[in-house]
Amino acid sequence: MSYSDAVKNKMEDSGAEPGDRVEITTKDRKHVGVLMPASGGSEDVVVLKLDGGYNIGIDINGIVGVKRLPWKEEELQDGAVEGVPGTEVEGMPEVSVLMAGGTIASRVDYRTGAVKASVGEEELIGSNPELAEVASLETRVIMNTLSENMSSSDWVKIAGEVKKEIDKGKDGVVVAHGTDTMGYSSAALSFMLEDLSVPVVLVGSQRSSDRGSSDSNQNLVCAVRAATSDIAEVMVCMHGTTSDNFCYLHSGTKVRKMHTSRRDAFRTVNGRPYAKVDWETRELETVREDYRRKDEDRETKLRDGFCKDVALVKVYPGMDHSALESHLEGTKGVVIEGTGLGHVPIKNEEIRNVLEEYIDRDNIVFMTSQCLYGRVNMNVYETGVDLVDIGVIGNLHDMLPETAYVKLGWLLGNYDKEEARELMLENMRGEISERTEHKDLVKWEDEF
Amino acid sequence: MSYSDAVKNKMEDSGAEPGDRVEITTKDRKHVGVLMPASGGSEDVVVLKLDGGYNIGIDINGIVGVKRLPWKEEELQDGAVEGVPGTEVEGMPEVSVLMAGGTIASRVDYRTGAVKASVGEEELIGSNPELAEVASLETRVIMNTLSENMSSSDWVKIAGEVKKEIDKGKDGVVVAHGTDTMGYSSAALSFMLEDLSVPVVLVGSQRSSDRGSSDSNQNLVCAVRAATSDIAEVMVCMHGTTSDNFCYLHSGTKVRKMHTSRRDAFRTVNGRPYAKVDWETRELETVREDYRRKDEDRETKLRDGFCKDVALVKVYPGMDHSALESHLEGTKGVVIEGTGLGHVPIKNEEIRNVLEEYIDRDNIVFMTSQCLYGRVNMNVYETGVDLVDIGVIGNLHDMLPETAYVKLGWLLGNYDKEEARELMLENMRGEISERTEHKDLVKWEDEF
Repeated sequence: MSYSDAVKNKMEDSGAEPGDRVEITTKDRKHVGVLMPASGGSEDVVVLKLDGGYNIGIDINGIVGVKRLPWKEEELQDGAVEGVPGTEVEGMPEVSVLMAGGTIASRVDYRTGAVKASVGEEELIGSNPELAEVASLETRVIMNTLSENMSSSDWVKIAGEVKKEIDKGKDGVVVAHGTDTMGYSSAALSFMLEDLSVPVVLVGSQRSSDRGSSDSNQNLVCAVRAATSDIAEVMVCMHGTTSDNFCYLHSGTKVRKMHTSRRDAFRTVNGRPYAKVDWETRELETVREDYRRKDEDRETKLRDGFCKDVALVKVYPGMDHSALESHLEGTKGVVIEGTGLGHVPIKNEEIRNVLEEYIDRDNIVFMTSQCLYGRVNMNVYETGVDLVDIGVIGNLHDMLPETAYVKLGWLLGNYDKEEARELMLENMRGEISERTEHKDLVKWEDEF
Repeated sequence: MSYSDAVKNKMEDSGAEPGDRVEITTKDRKHVGVLMPASGGSEDVVVLKLDGGYNIGIDINGIVGVKRLPWKEEELQDGAVEGVPGTEVEGMPEVSVLMAGGTIASRVDYRTGAVKASVGEEELIGSNPELAEVASLETRVIMNTLSENMSSSDWVKIAGEVKKEIDKGKDGVVVAHGTDTMGYSSAALSFMLEDLSVPVVLVGSQRSSDRGSSDSNQNLVCAVRAATSDIAEVMVCMHGTTSDNFCYLHSGTKVRKMHTSRRDAFRTVNGRPYAKVDWETRELETVREDYRRKDEDRETKLRDGFCKDVALVKVYPGMDHSALESHLEGTKGVVIEGTGLGHVPIKNEEIRNVLEEYIDRDNIVFMTSQCLYGRVNMNVYETGVDLVDIGVIGNLHDMLPETAYVKLGWLLGNYDKEEARELMLENMRGEISERTEHKDLVKWEDEF
């Protein structure tokens, strides 16, 4: 939707457009902030993003005056044109933002209460004027899909679009994406983009940008900042804590959504994030040094086959062997989320038979753990040893179940079965940590 | 196995028996500790548990002298007979320890490297002389099952055995159990034991008691201590940190194994533990006050029906609708581990049809989240609203997927379908927190 003619006229009188810094005077007081595009609430309500990051709505009928303001001195990069955020500046890094969908690309429709997509470039810049300080942006909508509805064909599409941007010579690519399955997608992009030459940063938000507590502004600005860095890896950029202080850059193969609603829901599991990006200063501080350096001369290759005949199966006490059997039907490989160090109830003859027969038909079974944290080790207990005896492969170390599932589908889509079986055990994209350092472990809450 | 005659003779000469405090002199030095039963290493190696908690093995041929020592003064309870741990003392709490299997009831066979069961009362007391300071014990082996092999019939068996001990008038019951599925079992016991009158404490260990880094000694002593408390709940007692400082008493319906190998792998998810038990002082400090108080006049009821026609299904991007369909075949109800706030790819018509038809056949679908932390909320996004529209039930709040699965099987085994559907949404055993306090949230590692 757009603003009513009454609003448009009043704004035009002052020369202010969405994305401009304005002072709006009402009967009671003055409000200073960035004029936002119409948000879908009422076309007569002017939306202003205050300096504190909160949005307010002001009814046009209560507005006494509108004044367009120059940008604050410290907000201008050298060479930027005053009052014109998004100005392309010689020497500024060039970043592409691909919009794939999700909360970060959505606004709440205040009339219906539903979340609706709204993903234009104008709105993106308008909502996040800080972006102009960080990079010269090109924005493109590549799909508009809530991430819970994504499947492997969407991963192939996104990987291809990212490759196009890299081929254009961009300094980095940001993918705005839903959070539900962002960890699966980041793993898929990690595998599909080989010899990556520049940063590829997935970013989402847990709360839409028109909510006061939204994380979208910080996440997006930090993601664009990350895309200008020399970390040529697939990363996920999300809030590091529940406060607005910094974002983590997580490894695409080690990250998981660990909370349904918190802004810091995304965590690196079994490892350390690559870096932190400070929200206040935009400074990027690395946490690890073992990342691939940016090199625009390196040619990023796209290897985007994906075999859909794979499954991810979590086992549980009392799981029926026929449920397992039918879940495996038609698949060539499966990643099991076992219990503890990597176990399934192999003492149950029927379950043993299902696995044995599946493996005898030349299919592949890999073991991970539903504990999520820690390493699989099938040599400690009888159960593990028995599983290895019948051909279950357990040396995935600390690979996440979700990453293992994505990797298996990707390997079977690009390599023959024997190669896939071997490559599964190799650390190709940081999905396996050879050692676990104490500092890599999650710190549990222990302050009760 | 038992010690060789050479060892037996040497011990008999000194009057020392397993469980006694001894001083063993070798050519080089003196070792003081508790004489342990033969561990299966070599029958000629005497195993001594040093005061620091570590076990050492001393070859009989290197032993110059053996001296039986009196117990240290501070280790004796009033009325205990000096040198005789486990003496039943008037007025001491009476606790039953039921051995169900798992690492805590196992020793490594040093010859084969395999972990083998070894669960006699003598060995339990011998390995853990501190138990005599805490309670008067009765020990019983009820099964010897690695927990990855347990199913609902084992839960029924354990619940029945616990009930027998309560009916004997015990002050509390400890169940030594494998760790792989201890969270599922603790949920099952929570539901099967109604109006619990005394504490029921599940305990396991991540490393067997003959390893220097074993957690079994601390966990078991703290569990017995917890069983003497006034917290009449089903709890899990495990290390609170990776150090030997305290154990947490987790709620049986809120606890999850979150690491494959760490000693502090068990965490309360979406809530707070009931209490901490200090290892040094044996003091129990409550963290919450909302627990059921011990009352021996209250009659604990056993409600141990369980319907096996239930399933727990984790969804993932690209999951085949026929895999979902066949997994549900023959079941009356399912708990789905959805993405984010509680989603499945409902835009996929085939998946929608599978769920719709399943629900139309009068089966029940409950939604939980694979994030594990946080609350399900199906009113925020279109996907959630669509799922509720076709009859998926999402108001389980912050119930863990594993707990929801156990609860659903238990409800369908004891109530008719309509009652089960309603009771599923009620907080029966602490499985639902009505509010999430900030203090209940996990504290993520943020010190990178």
